[in-house]
Amino acid sequence: MGVLDTISGPQDLRRLSDDELTTLAAEIRDRLITSCAPVGGHLGPNLGVVELTLAIHRTFDSPRDRVVWDTGHQAYVHKMVTGRAAEFDRLRVEGGLSGYPSRSESDHDLVENSHASTSLSYADGLAKAYAIRGEDRHVVAVIGDGALTGGMAWEALNNIAVAEDSRLVIVVNDNGRSYTPTIGGLTTALTRLRTSPRYEQVLDLVKRRLNAVPGVGPAAYDALHAMKKGVKDAVAPQGLFEDLGLKYVGPVDGHDRAAVEHALSQAKKFGGPVIVHAITRKGFGYDAAERHEADQFHQVGPFDPDSGEQDPKGTIWTNAFTEEIVRIGQRRQDVVAITAAMMHPTGLHQFQARFPERTFDVGIAEQHAATSAAGLAMGGLHPVVAIYATFLNRAFDQVLMDCALHRCGVTFVLDRAGVTGDDGASHNGMWDMSILQVVPGLRLAAPRDATRLRELLNEAVDVDDAPTVLRFPKGPPPDDVPAVDTVGGVDVLVRTGTRDVLVVAVGAMATTAVDVAERLVAQGIGVTVVDPRWVKPVDPALVDLARQHRLVVSIEDNGETGGCGAVLLQTLNAAGVTTPFRLHGIPQEFLGHAKRGRILEQIGLTPQAIALGIVEDITALSDPPRAEVQADR
Amino acid sequence: MGVLDTISGPQDLRRLSDDELTTLAAEIRDRLITSCAPVGGHLGPNLGVVELTLAIHRTFDSPRDRVVWDTGHQAYVHKMVTGRAAEFDRLRVEGGLSGYPSRSESDHDLVENSHASTSLSYADGLAKAYAIRGEDRHVVAVIGDGALTGGMAWEALNNIAVAEDSRLVIVVNDNGRSYTPTIGGLTTALTRLRTSPRYEQVLDLVKRRLNAVPGVGPAAYDALHAMKKGVKDAVAPQGLFEDLGLKYVGPVDGHDRAAVEHALSQAKKFGGPVIVHAITRKGFGYDAAERHEADQFHQVGPFDPDSGEQDPKGTIWTNAFTEEIVRIGQRRQDVVAITAAMMHPTGLHQFQARFPERTFDVGIAEQHAATSAAGLAMGGLHPVVAIYATFLNRAFDQVLMDCALHRCGVTFVLDRAGVTGDDGASHNGMWDMSILQVVPGLRLAAPRDATRLRELLNEAVDVDDAPTVLRFPKGPPPDDVPAVDTVGGVDVLVRTGTRDVLVVAVGAMATTAVDVAERLVAQGIGVTVVDPRWVKPVDPALVDLARQHRLVVSIEDNGETGGCGAVLLQTLNAAGVTTPFRLHGIPQEFLGHAKRGRILEQIGLTPQAIALGIVEDITALSDPPRAEVQADR
Repeated sequence: MGVLDTISGPQDLRRLSDDELTTLAAEIRDRLITSCAPVGGHLGPNLGVVELTLAIHRTFDSPRDRVVWDTGHQAYVHKMVTGRAAEFDRLRVEGGLSGYPSRSESDHDLVENSHASTSLSYADGLAKAYAIRGEDRHVVAVIGDGALTGGMAWEALNNIAVAEDSRLVIVVNDNGRSYTPTIGGLTTALTRLRTSPRYEQVLDLVKRRLNAVPGVGPAAYDALHAMKKGVKDAVAPQGLFEDLGLKYVGPVDGHDRAAVEHALSQAKKFGGPVIVHAITRKGFGYDAAERHEADQFHQVGPFDPDSGEQDPKGTIWTNAFTEEIVRIGQRRQDVVAITAAMMHPTGLHQFQARFPERTFDVGIAEQHAATSAAGLAMGGLHPVVAIYATFLNRAFDQVLMDCALHRCGVTFVLDRAGVTGDDGASHNGMWDMSILQVVPGLRLAAPRDATRLRELLNEAVDVDDAPTVLRFPKGPPPDDVPAVDTVGGVDVLVRTGTRDVLVVAVGAMATTAVDVAERLVAQGIGVTVVDPRWVKPVDPALVDLARQHRLVVSIEDNGETGGCGAVLLQTLNAAGVTTPFRLHGIPQEFLGHAKRGRILEQIGLTPQAIALGIVEDITALSDPPRAEVQADR
Repeated sequence: MGVLDTISGPQDLRRLSDDELTTLAAEIRDRLITSCAPVGGHLGPNLGVVELTLAIHRTFDSPRDRVVWDTGHQAYVHKMVTGRAAEFDRLRVEGGLSGYPSRSESDHDLVENSHASTSLSYADGLAKAYAIRGEDRHVVAVIGDGALTGGMAWEALNNIAVAEDSRLVIVVNDNGRSYTPTIGGLTTALTRLRTSPRYEQVLDLVKRRLNAVPGVGPAAYDALHAMKKGVKDAVAPQGLFEDLGLKYVGPVDGHDRAAVEHALSQAKKFGGPVIVHAITRKGFGYDAAERHEADQFHQVGPFDPDSGEQDPKGTIWTNAFTEEIVRIGQRRQDVVAITAAMMHPTGLHQFQARFPERTFDVGIAEQHAATSAAGLAMGGLHPVVAIYATFLNRAFDQVLMDCALHRCGVTFVLDRAGVTGDDGASHNGMWDMSILQVVPGLRLAAPRDATRLRELLNEAVDVDDAPTVLRFPKGPPPDDVPAVDTVGGVDVLVRTGTRDVLVVAVGAMATTAVDVAERLVAQGIGVTVVDPRWVKPVDPALVDLARQHRLVVSIEDNGETGGCGAVLLQTLNAAGVTTPFRLHGIPQEFLGHAKRGRILEQIGLTPQAIALGIVEDITALSDPPRAEVQADR
């Protein structure tokens, strides 16, 4: 039985000796590695915050004091020391521990949203609420240097700086990276703090003293910390933060638990908002992660815990984008690419390697990504903004007002659209096809397979007077689904028997629709399956097709409300087409974490469930109308 | 004929003498005052940028060099000197000059969006495009200190700081105010620059020298500028901007045209991104504006140009909110209020006066407003976020992921919803009732009159486990529309004759609907008019009512796509209700500027047009079905 097994909550951390804490840190790292090995997860960031987390929970009294983890993926250690270590064998599996804070798991968790840069705003609100209510509770926000590049963080800092009564401690977890190295002027500012002569001089001094002491032992260790305290742990204004009027402690070595604790204690005592600047290393303490150049195991799939070798990744939708955007880049000198701190995950890395001068990583800054793209378009270029579908929500206003109002030819490529599953509610990309419907002039395409992704990407970058959007899901693309015909701009995938059912399949749901068709045909129901390719604007051919069938069924991997089916229904209604309409999409609610396939089953987005519903509908249509319905009129 | 009449474009400014330029500035101020007096407008900000604008257009070569005006309302002077001075008698009237930059008016205009904090992102994109294309063109972004509090500006600065090749000049127009005094840590930073001893010392020195010179004339004036140049116009890193790695010139007196020109020239020569920090005063040169304490005529209605006396303002929707939120604040100690730099316009000023410790102005920071509200709610309070409807788009992700996912009891009060008219496309609040439909758990109310606004506000602040939204339009509220009955949670406003038509009226369109009903009754058509009050979720009573009528008509002051009508149609379809449905809303396109009433006419949201359509629909329903429709099936 290790130390970790004795930890049922933060209070148990406070009785441990330094040696026990060192042992505990090692045990936590082991548990992190063995838990992530079979299922993957955000290993690197969590290896980087072991000491930081211990220090926070030894200094503050959670859940009375509140700890807010920005982006949430670095909360594994927090989970282990708040009573959940034993459950790590079921990390990120359905019914098991979430990979993010989860209020249903623990009172120590507060913020579940995995979108970056929110923690300071939450913390500002919490601290103000406690001040107003006269409650003596501290709020700790832990935010990475990457998340500080997000505009929300700036808005929050601007407010926190003048909230003098807030018992608010901001821990800047500075590892110089978000996913990949953090970009921009902020890095300059943090580097200046990180490498300030004051800090360097202290370290030198400490080193000299230690070298002068024969048999360096606990006393020297204490002396070292005492010295560090004296010089770098004073609450004092510094650089960027000073300019804003914010107090600052640091920089402190984030892997020196005692030093972090001391800094946090200083900050806690101060009585107003303070920034504690901790320098950490992603992947710290696990060789394979530290050595991993691309991202220090930021987010890994399954891997071998001994060798650190990751399971080979299969082909995913993203690969088709990666290849095609490079091809387009060769053909078109005016095409430029933008990522919001996700160069590899969005598949832009090869474009970057080929065309570095035409590739921009703007930081975790989706708003700036969209509006600087509008500027690039006004300047005569065609920007391609590659982004996860769920994060586009951050730039809705910019897509609408900066890109669409100005008729800018900007192409947004939304990866991980639809149900993503593992990462929980805030990673599912189930909003884009609804909110984008309201954007005048915007054209939206959903490729059904890798070939269509390539085709539609080429069509999209040829549109220079309106924003275009491509969206596709996580995971492997299906086998190509060939068209047997086209009507207008609509691909006909299946056309068989009488015109009973028109199935309008959006994007990746085409494969499901073809399966549905096979089931219907087996039951003697005639079916036409079409893929509109461009789902916005609605192709007039769909209106004609709907008129010619007895039942229209739409299937999309997007929220039901206001999505492609809803807009098609609205269009048909406006055109006076009264064909019965059955809409299939994601129920308009926040989904728990599970595998994508499992969630699709649960919400009825499977060929079996959809075919069953259609058979029922067609049967009902063949029955005579019920008497009471007539009476109602 | 004055100097202004000789200016057909920026090139004409460059041949003017100092005296002529001084005369021109005075003429421009006169023209600003006389043009705004009859129609109102953003007078204060434009009085504050006269010299700044002249300096920019004398230093840079627009439209080859691009000038981006953040928020856009301070572009009147820019319009005057780019060939549009003669058209100022038709400012802000239909078919006349827009109150914002307008690409259809002039090649000198580029960005029409009036949402704040975008200029730096546009400029970053433009400058990068020119660099990539090898075009030697400068980009000038003019941004206020208020707009700098918006997160987008931070995201842009972070990127601009490392864009070394960008020929980008950022003019910070620092008047210490956005609408009201700018809030937060940024103000601290700017004040430090503004009041730096270096600058003060120079001014003192200059004053002493001038006093020592008998008969101060042009020579002394030149000497003054030469001295200023030497000390404060050097391109050098400074404070906040230095930390980010940005070069800086300033601070410079924004009403000293020659000084501004010199600073801009320095910046232009530098070859990389530079900030020019200009100190200006809103309302400068017009006594009535300078003396106006609330907002220096930031945005005025019609006023007397001699006395500066503004026409008395009639009662508007906002007044009911102002009174009721104070009443609620007295009753509920846990209710707090948040504004994003719009304390007066959103009607929170009386709440602030009564409960200053419970009122937060977060700056132009809608994202932080929403997420800090989530934090306040988690801390046990009930925040009311008052904001213009169109600006909520900036916080869509935060409403969804931070408020709704966490089931936070936050009330958003959306003023200026629907067609606002005068301020053009980006001020119309026609998006909120569509995009909010996708937010799980969120409840959305649209009061039809001031009494309902009060009622619904009280109901909203009593919801503590989900976000609630109230939305109402600009201008005067209608006379109260009493309910004759209620069905479920739905108010019945009119019920007469047979159950021919069900009119579902959303919010302020209730008055229109009642008028429609009178017209229908006159033609012997039976009509029921209902107001759902809470439009999300859809009240089940509406489904039953729809089933009982021959035609359903929805009317809303929101975009047609995905709005209340669309979701009702979708709900009815899912419930198997096939009653013909006619949806009335704002066409899903960007609207030009005109009076609200005039736009409602143009888009057919009038009692006449709607009643006419209903009569046609009812007549068609009474006709036998056409043969070809049958054949199609």
